[in-house]
Amino acid sequence: MEIKGEMQRDKQLEDGRRSGAEESFQMTPIGVIHTPFREPAGTPIQPRRARGVRGTVEVFEKFQEGLKDLEGFERIWLLYWFHRAAPAQLRVVPYLDDKERGLFATRAPSRPNPIGLSCVRLLELRGNLLSVAEVDILDGTPLLDIKPYVPEFDGFRVRRCGWLESAASRRGVADDRFGK
Amino acid sequence: MEIKGEMQRDKQLEDGRRSGAEESFQMTPIGVIHTPFREPAGTPIQPRRARGVRGTVEVFEKFQEGLKDLEGFERIWLLYWFHRAAPAQLRVVPYLDDKERGLFATRAPSRPNPIGLSCVRLLELRGNLLSVAEVDILDGTPLLDIKPYVPEFDGFRVRRCGWLESAASRRGVADDRFGK
Repeated sequence: MEIKGEMQRDKQLEDGRRSGAEESFQMTPIGVIHTPFREPAGTPIQPRRARGVRGTVEVFEKFQEGLKDLEGFERIWLLYWFHRAAPAQLRVVPYLDDKERGLFATRAPSRPNPIGLSCVRLLELRGNLLSVAEVDILDGTPLLDIKPYVPEFDGFRVRRCGWLESAASRRGVADDRFGK
Repeated sequence: MEIKGEMQRDKQLEDGRRSGAEESFQMTPIGVIHTPFREPAGTPIQPRRARGVRGTVEVFEKFQEGLKDLEGFERIWLLYWFHRAAPAQLRVVPYLDDKERGLFATRAPSRPNPIGLSCVRLLELRGNLLSVAEVDILDGTPLLDIKPYVPEFDGFRVRRCGWLESAASRRGVADDRFGK
């Protein structure tokens, strides 16, 4: 039975390859994020390190209709393109440590698909412009998606938090190491 | 001064348009997600509604090196391409309600950039295969990115949670409404 299980898994993996999972996809920005940060160096590394920082999310008008009902949410996820990140590196020294780590165990921007993910505070929605706070994003960043932050879906208690439990640094802002 | 402020903001928005924010970006899967769910109908709508469901995340071998240090994390974000979602709709009736809502105020899959976001439990990492639990993802879904779940970065208490506070439905699984 173990062999059959293995074969089934191999079959699953093979199916995955055939399903077109290796094709590529085109993404088009739905807006642009305006913030006070013009360069990677000095930009906060996470919303939690960006208290008091405000920005404006401009959603292109043709998508404005999709913003309805968003203002009831206190926080929103912004998904965006790390447009100033250097090419992907599979090992990185993250801002919060002094050791090399596997890229996918970090939030470093130099990723094969450089998608950024930040949970910012929504202050106000006016037409196609969102005022947001706790922004850790570079000015001019292309916006890919907005999703509501839902504690039931997104907030989890965990006991283990990998290398971050003993992270060497409490650094709060970025430097140039992943920039281009 | 108010007018100057407005002008500066207009200038910022104009700069945004000139910065190439309307170009498009290419994404290539870094792996494929294997789960028991072959069709949208019946698939759990969030990890919290998928207790006990297991899956395998296959990361293509050329990216395997980036998985180092990941196994110390109890939960991970999977970012993936909603490959079976119908074209974007800016107003949707979400699974958890019976009213039409703005798309960006929902987690519906039919989005301009159909990027899915799920925080799953990491059980085991073996080579390029991750065993995960609490999986709400369709079989064969192309994987775009993996990030560690970090409570300091991702877990927030909120007082307001929009239309979900009075959501009409406690439905736990999807149906065909966003499928293709």
